[in-house]
Amino acid sequence: MATQYIDMETLRFLLYDVHEVDQLLSTDRFKNYDKEALDMLLDSVKELSDKEMFPYIKEMDEQPAVFKDGRISIHPQFEKVLKMGGEMGLVNAIFDEEDGGMQLPASITNAAYLIMEAANNHIPGYFGLAAGAANLIRVFGSQELKDTYLPKMSTMEWAGTMCLTEPQAGSSLSDIVTSAEPREDGTYKIEGQKIFISGGDHQFADNFIHLVLARIKGAPAGTKGISLFVVPRSAIGADGSLTYNHVSTLGEFNKMGQKSYCTTHLGFSDGGDSVGWLVGEPNQGLRYMFQMMNEARIATGRMGTGIASAAYHASLEYAKERPQGRRLGSDGSKDVNEEQTLIINHPDVKRMLLLQKAFVEACMSLITEASNFVDKESTTDGDQKEYYHYLLELLTPIVKTYPAEKGKEAIDNGVQVLGGYGYTTDFILQQYYRDVRIISIYEGTTGIQSLDLLGRKAMLKNGAVLQELAKVIQGNIADASKYDELRPYGKTLAMNLGLIQEVIGSLMPYAMKGDHQRFLADATLFMDLFSTIIAGWQWLKMATKAKELLITGKGTASEAFYESKIHTMKFFYKYEMGRTRGLAKIIQDQQDLTLADAPVEYL
Amino acid sequence: MATQYIDMETLRFLLYDVHEVDQLLSTDRFKNYDKEALDMLLDSVKELSDKEMFPYIKEMDEQPAVFKDGRISIHPQFEKVLKMGGEMGLVNAIFDEEDGGMQLPASITNAAYLIMEAANNHIPGYFGLAAGAANLIRVFGSQELKDTYLPKMSTMEWAGTMCLTEPQAGSSLSDIVTSAEPREDGTYKIEGQKIFISGGDHQFADNFIHLVLARIKGAPAGTKGISLFVVPRSAIGADGSLTYNHVSTLGEFNKMGQKSYCTTHLGFSDGGDSVGWLVGEPNQGLRYMFQMMNEARIATGRMGTGIASAAYHASLEYAKERPQGRRLGSDGSKDVNEEQTLIINHPDVKRMLLLQKAFVEACMSLITEASNFVDKESTTDGDQKEYYHYLLELLTPIVKTYPAEKGKEAIDNGVQVLGGYGYTTDFILQQYYRDVRIISIYEGTTGIQSLDLLGRKAMLKNGAVLQELAKVIQGNIADASKYDELRPYGKTLAMNLGLIQEVIGSLMPYAMKGDHQRFLADATLFMDLFSTIIAGWQWLKMATKAKELLITGKGTASEAFYESKIHTMKFFYKYEMGRTRGLAKIIQDQQDLTLADAPVEYL
Repeated sequence: MATQYIDMETLRFLLYDVHEVDQLLSTDRFKNYDKEALDMLLDSVKELSDKEMFPYIKEMDEQPAVFKDGRISIHPQFEKVLKMGGEMGLVNAIFDEEDGGMQLPASITNAAYLIMEAANNHIPGYFGLAAGAANLIRVFGSQELKDTYLPKMSTMEWAGTMCLTEPQAGSSLSDIVTSAEPREDGTYKIEGQKIFISGGDHQFADNFIHLVLARIKGAPAGTKGISLFVVPRSAIGADGSLTYNHVSTLGEFNKMGQKSYCTTHLGFSDGGDSVGWLVGEPNQGLRYMFQMMNEARIATGRMGTGIASAAYHASLEYAKERPQGRRLGSDGSKDVNEEQTLIINHPDVKRMLLLQKAFVEACMSLITEASNFVDKESTTDGDQKEYYHYLLELLTPIVKTYPAEKGKEAIDNGVQVLGGYGYTTDFILQQYYRDVRIISIYEGTTGIQSLDLLGRKAMLKNGAVLQELAKVIQGNIADASKYDELRPYGKTLAMNLGLIQEVIGSLMPYAMKGDHQRFLADATLFMDLFSTIIAGWQWLKMATKAKELLITGKGTASEAFYESKIHTMKFFYKYEMGRTRGLAKIIQDQQDLTLADAPVEYL
Repeated sequence: MATQYIDMETLRFLLYDVHEVDQLLSTDRFKNYDKEALDMLLDSVKELSDKEMFPYIKEMDEQPAVFKDGRISIHPQFEKVLKMGGEMGLVNAIFDEEDGGMQLPASITNAAYLIMEAANNHIPGYFGLAAGAANLIRVFGSQELKDTYLPKMSTMEWAGTMCLTEPQAGSSLSDIVTSAEPREDGTYKIEGQKIFISGGDHQFADNFIHLVLARIKGAPAGTKGISLFVVPRSAIGADGSLTYNHVSTLGEFNKMGQKSYCTTHLGFSDGGDSVGWLVGEPNQGLRYMFQMMNEARIATGRMGTGIASAAYHASLEYAKERPQGRRLGSDGSKDVNEEQTLIINHPDVKRMLLLQKAFVEACMSLITEASNFVDKESTTDGDQKEYYHYLLELLTPIVKTYPAEKGKEAIDNGVQVLGGYGYTTDFILQQYYRDVRIISIYEGTTGIQSLDLLGRKAMLKNGAVLQELAKVIQGNIADASKYDELRPYGKTLAMNLGLIQEVIGSLMPYAMKGDHQRFLADATLFMDLFSTIIAGWQWLKMATKAKELLITGKGTASEAFYESKIHTMKFFYKYEMGRTRGLAKIIQDQQDLTLADAPVEYL
């Protein structure tokens, strides 16, 4: 069994050195915290993760969530860990103090969740969903709704979910048909079925507070007619008593991985009326939900990052302990009388480890970058607030997708490091390989995120937001270029920024002439291109800070630690940034091969 | 549940049109067959697969091989299917008639296995191992060994295995320690443990005939001191009675996938002597085993191809039935009043399907190409025989690895086509995703195959074999260039042949100056490059034949069938051949980033 799952020293380097999160502490919003308090909080999350989460990761795979007699049951350890997490404030971490929250920076909150997700990716989603559901009520709900639900959601006595998907609609939210019929008392009767509802039922919460998208009878077709409702599994009486609200659990989707993070099928108004309370205004549901979805997208990327981090450490430990084969002599032969070498000394194994490190730490940095934008948005006003808001909008599909896609690739390499053992259930790698596969699907598939990136986000304000991001990156290139060793990599990154513009420039004519299908046909490849360049940006930032600390001697880590960041940056630029020109050329190729109808018959 | 798993029309197109397997029927070796007989054989294998294999694929995942009380038990359907396969001659298909074999072309035998592997990848390995083990005895064993073992192995009454790997050695065969001590009667006492033994024990064979690599006491160190033994689980008395030979089953490796294809841990001389019979000469074991391993490597690639084929058809069927979302209008918006479209009409979904098709059919063609070389080697003499032998040697690591690596990628796309459903156990995609992952590990990992390709095969006869292969490919380019539509793709392929030479040219200096580690450091990327170009070669061959049949009208398939081959070739050249220049550049980059010791401490 592996012993490590995340590198805390790298996490602190990212938070305090690369992204300078402690600068936030001078703002009014976060002035009650100092760096020591943040460190203590992260340490206590690490301790919780070490003791109560990481030791259960394999069991939670082997004892999955089970649907029986109309209810779902999950692993017994959840009783303890959900309670402890609630007490630590994981649900209301970022909420304002006046709403009973901890008013923590998102950077720190996301770092805390990342630690837990690396320790055990089956657990933190339950907190995250309670937090997301509670936050929707907090921001858009009435005072009555807030008073009714927030206190018990924040302690995890009551769980929270988001109910979007329906069997006939899938990712196409315009087609949802769950109905909301006004009742005389101003509430609604909610009727329909929702599928793929994470955390939708289990034995360790007294109530489930579902945030449900539904269509008020007579509302306009499509996404414009969708409203948001609070629909508790049990309605709350004036005296606090709970009465079954006819939200039934119809089943559990058995999954290839993440088996203890339940995925439920819910029915509303099953054998009686499910009463729902409207959140905010009618027909604004999708807009409200998108606030939660943007948070959820960052959280999904973070979860992928956590799983990949754990897999990296597990395969690294194996490679440092497992002797096998010998180093090659100068004539290409091996001396069988020599002792076996550790497999980490084989160049191909080291390549697979460095590739994992390069992906995992780029993802960690990307999550921190996005979180920092969240914090800057919440601590600024006016134009500045808008500036950070839009930068975050642009980055969000990348923050969701890059860790999903490269997390898969990283863990595939982790499995390969272990060879045959990696495929057996004696080792954890095969579990991470299965667990991470959902990340490309949750919260909008990679295809959908890619349409969002190319079709909407890159075009925000006619491309001005993209220009603003490019300026930020150019600033970092200028910083890097102070150092001879880093200058060539800065040049490569600058060239790549140009490449994004060039690719967009060659796709725009399709959009201009109304051929949107063609414009977006290779959006997924554009995502690969753009997000790889964004990861390259993160690596240049990390290397620049490492170089600076090496020279000034002001860093708290060893020289080898900083050298390894610069080394891994070079690795990333060779092996990953080396792919971008080819990728751009493919996207710019004018042949229409996925639109043509001809081959469908014989696909 | 999916209904299709392989496209028989494409398989026949590959066998008879592209690779002209029927030309073999004029040779002395295969003159007893005509095309009708071959077709009937493939049809009967398809029928067996339809009825007895495909319906059990999901059950075999859900009811895995189980180790209990010292024995392994597998799914009950194996009783029937192993017997039927034995009766059909699947074990001795390619053996000479004088050895009781069917003397079938390898092209047809591999096509038959491919059909079965696409239907149910948990089953055919049992036949393949019996065939491989029997073939070693047939080719290198004494008449006595042949008489003792071959008849019952060919009917599957007795199973066969190959026992190479040991716990302390892994892929490093020079480190195996299983010992062979001469006994007075000329037999040997075999003592040691073997792990990862596919098909090593189950309840449906009366005996298990293990082909075991072991070291005769006093033999030279390393691979030069390895001998090959037949070690039956039960020794055979003069009267045919079976006596336990102290080959014990110590356990079953529980795997992430391919769960009904058992993977056993065996102990030799456990509680008594395990008697072994030497095959051929002492210390020649590895050379003998390599014959079987080369067959096994083609078989492993074929298995990966089969799984990817099944996943492709399952996701294709889903995409043709599942309505979701709408086509984009000319302004980029969607009309919600329109009916939902089938998801196959979304360009990104079609791209994922075409990518699967492009990988699967390239792999099918590659297997057929390699099989054809096997057949040509077995029907020619002297220089010609040697010519085909070496071409096959060169192609073997690619035939093993390309379907493994691209099979994973293909199936990853198949899962994504189904979105959330693809991740649930209600659909088969998640199983194929798990099943295929072993293919990159079986029979030498991708890393090991890549070292073989760059370090040995590309260098065979100082590169002359590679030159011969290039000549074959240039011949196919010339054929393609007769057609205006195909000429540009022929040029691209020619450029790519040059690229391989260029890359080797820039790596050779490392080998010359004795820096073999550096020479081979990026062998895995070289494999990606070389094998993608080989797949591009197969696609050009397919498109050329399709074009010819379209023009002459002599084909038996529809025009749309042939058009789809040309279309998919173009797709492959855009999306896959488009990657090769970037890949070459990465390999040619001179930075040594995986050899340096510096970052290991902080990996």
